[in-house]
Formats: sequence, structure tokens, C-alpha cells
Amino acid sequence: MAKVDIFSKIPDLNYKEESDYQNSADFTKLVNSRRSCRVYTDDPVPEEVIQKCLDLALLAPNSSNLQPWQFYWVKSKDKRKLLNKYCLNQPAASTAPEIIVAVACPEMWRTTRKLMLQAFEEQDEVKTPKAAIQYYKKIVPLAYDQGPLGIKGRIKKVVLYLMGFKKPTPRGPASKSDMRTWAHKSTALACQNLMLAFRSYGYDTCPMEGLDENRVHDLLELPRSARVCMAISVGKRAKNGIYGPRIRFDRDLFVKTV
Amino acid sequence: MAKVDIFSKIPDLNYKEESDYQNSADFTKLVNSRRSCRVYTDDPVPEEVIQKCLDLALLAPNSSNLQPWQFYWVKSKDKRKLLNKYCLNQPAASTAPEIIVAVACPEMWRTTRKLMLQAFEEQDEVKTPKAAIQYYKKIVPLAYDQGPLGIKGRIKKVVLYLMGFKKPTPRGPASKSDMRTWAHKSTALACQNLMLAFRSYGYDTCPMEGLDENRVHDLLELPRSARVCMAISVGKRAKNGIYGPRIRFDRDLFVKTV
Repeated sequence: MAKVDIFSKIPDLNYKEESDYQNSADFTKLVNSRRSCRVYTDDPVPEEVIQKCLDLALLAPNSSNLQPWQFYWVKSKDKRKLLNKYCLNQPAASTAPEIIVAVACPEMWRTTRKLMLQAFEEQDEVKTPKAAIQYYKKIVPLAYDQGPLGIKGRIKKVVLYLMGFKKPTPRGPASKSDMRTWAHKSTALACQNLMLAFRSYGYDTCPMEGLDENRVHDLLELPRSARVCMAISVGKRAKNGIYGPRIRFDRDLFVKTV
Repeated sequence: MAKVDIFSKIPDLNYKEESDYQNSADFTKLVNSRRSCRVYTDDPVPEEVIQKCLDLALLAPNSSNLQPWQFYWVKSKDKRKLLNKYCLNQPAASTAPEIIVAVACPEMWRTTRKLMLQAFEEQDEVKTPKAAIQYYKKIVPLAYDQGPLGIKGRIKKVVLYLMGFKKPTPRGPASKSDMRTWAHKSTALACQNLMLAFRSYGYDTCPMEGLDENRVHDLLELPRSARVCMAISVGKRAKNGIYGPRIRFDRDLFVKTV
């Protein structure tokens, strides 16, 4: 399989990118100051801040660089009124100057794999290894196309299962549901960037999942396959914006050493 | 429904948490310096750094604070050898000093909702509103328990569908697959914190999804319902660690204003 080439061997590339960035004290402060904000002041969020934070969100790592995400900034007053209702009128939505809806796009790879191939052709800094081109040409459709009614996915599941007896084999995505999870994961990575970015600009956020996904889907006129990942409200924290001290449990429940 | 109380009204709490943190220049540098690293040097990652970064990961926002995540630091040499194989021996795994496997835990809410109730009882800074206690006592099991073979989920789906005709209604999670997605989303938020945390300490990471989930599941002896979200390798970037310049496409594809 062509996959093996780019995955198991270190390609001989003439590219160097170093970084001496280090500032854990600052990042620790940032993470500690990010709390989910439930009540906002009326202070507006400047457009420039929103755009810059969205740019930082888009720099999150993501699956095979296929960027299966979209961010809908709901600016229209009419749509915003409806969105508040669809977010069950929780204060984190109704008092927020802005809401951005993060959308997981399981079908985005169809567009972005082509854009990747185009980008490879255009970039002259580095000669793209053949295996990478093959990956986007052949492996990506094989991996992500589940076929009508997910039939290709079902066949793939069986094939991967059988291959899996012989050697380590990725088992998915092998269904439309797997594809949704796949897109949600990358989208959530970008959401975390987005929320931290706003905090770094002095604004607070609240990620909301308790919403009417179907109505939001219609409101944003999303394609059938897309799914609302979360709505993120943004603004300046009101004095009563944080409901209580942060609650975390014994880390041994979550951190395991094996 | 008790839900409405805590969700649509601002509770009268005697809690204040302000933050004047702001440092967008630094966060922008951090996000820009985080690249997926495919080749590492032999430099070890100090245990202290790993633990601190895991602590920062655990501060990510998450669904209803139910923290449906686990992080497995694979320290055992034998297990690590196998893990490299299960990550298809890609250099991002095989050259990495450390790998942490992030696991989505759809059943974690059974434990953490009780811990939330306990935490409410113990905290004396703020008097927890009754609606919040009711939320964890009654709504959480209703929302997250899908029942044997997902039967409760199916019933819930129908009920929410019918309720949805009348008023905005969250539509899920209403299946075991929804629960997996639910857990993956929160886990991915924490993964992004983790990767940025390592970068802030001067270490690089690579999130890997191309792995044999079944074998990793067995290796870590995960509960049946848990799912590998991604494996994150950590170390010092080798000179050839980054394969090429970052590729992002026209932001209009991803950012929409409505």
C-alpha cells in the first residue's frame, strides 16, 4: 500500500521549521482564566477580534489536514433571536453579544483533498513526496467515502476486520456515523483554539451543546450531512458571569500510567 | 421541567470570579508555533512537564462538567513497543519519547454526576441552586442513559421528536453512537489544551488517528464502551520534524457570516 511509504518512513525533505517559543507560565494563566461564562455585559466584541480568533481556530491540527469544519458567525438580528430560542434561551446565549456556531462537516474532505493536491502543486518550498500525493489521490477517497447508504463503509469494515487479523489496521471510519465523529473531533480541536483565543483577547466564551440541533441546522441552511458541533457565545464577562468555582475531581480517575 | 430553571434564569449566586488576563500576542505565537511533529530527537520529556500538561488538559471545558475523558500515558517499554506497531510504526510514534492516548469515555457520567453532587454538598463558597442539584440527580441520567441495547435512547428519540414540533428541544444524545460522539467532543477539547500546553513548555506533539483502535483498546485494557480518541506523541522536534509549511485554504470556505 502506498500508505506505508509516507507513514512508516521519514521522507527526505528539504524543509526546516524551528521554534524556540516557550511560555508555560502564560499559557497556564490563560487556561486558568478561561471559565465558561453564563452572563455577559453589553460590551460589543470588535469584528477584528472575532476574525482574528477565527483565524487562530483554523490553525488547529485536524485529521489529514482535511479541515472538516465550519464556523457560522450569526450576525443577522433576526437569525440571532431565533438562535437564542434554539439555545433554549439560556443566559449564556441570550445575554451574549455574539454567538459562533461550530459545524462538523463530514463531507468537507471531498473539497479539501483536491485543495491539498492543488497546494502541493503550487508550493515550491518543498518537493512533495509522491506518497503524499498518492495519499490524497487514492487513500483519502478510499478511507472517507462511505458510498450510497454507507455501503462502501460496510464492505470496508469487513475488509479491515479481516486484514486486522494479520496486522495492525485502522478500523475506520467505516460508516456515516464514524464520519460524523471524525469531523466532530477535528472541529472540537478548533473550538478549543477559538475559546482560548477569545480569552487571550480578554473576552469570555461558553460552549453550548444543549440546543435544538435540527432547528439550528435549518436556520444556518447547513448541508444535510453537516452537524452542529457546539455553539460558542462570546462577550465580556458580567460580574455574575461565572456561576461558581471550577470543579475538577481526583485526577487519578482521568490520568492513567500504563 | 427542572431544566428550565437553571438554564433560562440567571441564578442569584454570591460568587465572583474576575479575570484581567489578556495576552493575544503570546497566544498567537503559541498557536503558530504548534505544528504536528513527525520526527523527534531523543531528548526525554521530564515527568513534571507531562503531569503539568495533563493537568492543563483536564481544565478544558466539557459537556455538563461530566469530564468524559481519560489520558493513558504509556510508560511501560513493552506496551510502548506494541503501541508503536499499532500506530502503524509512523515516525511520529516510533521516534517519540512519549505517547499519551486520549480516550473518550461515554459512560464516565455515571461516576462524575455523583462526584458533582458530592462537590456541591462540600462546597461552602457558593450555595448550589436546587435546579443544579436536580439537573445532576434527574436530568443527567435521563439525558445520558441509553438503556440496554440503546432502547431508552430510541424511546427518547421519538419523545424528543414529538416535543420538537412544539418548541425548541435538544435532540440527543439518543443512541450509544451519539454518546460516543458526545464523549469524543469533550475529549478533543482537552486534547487541544494538551498539545498547546506541551508547546508552551517547548515540546512538540502529533495527534494520531491512523492507528489500530481495536488493538490499542485491548492494550490499554479499556472498558468496552470507551473509544480511543487520538494518540498524542510528545517530544523535542528534530530538525526534519516538520514535513512542510502549514497549508490552509481560503478561509471563506470555513468562515461564514449569516
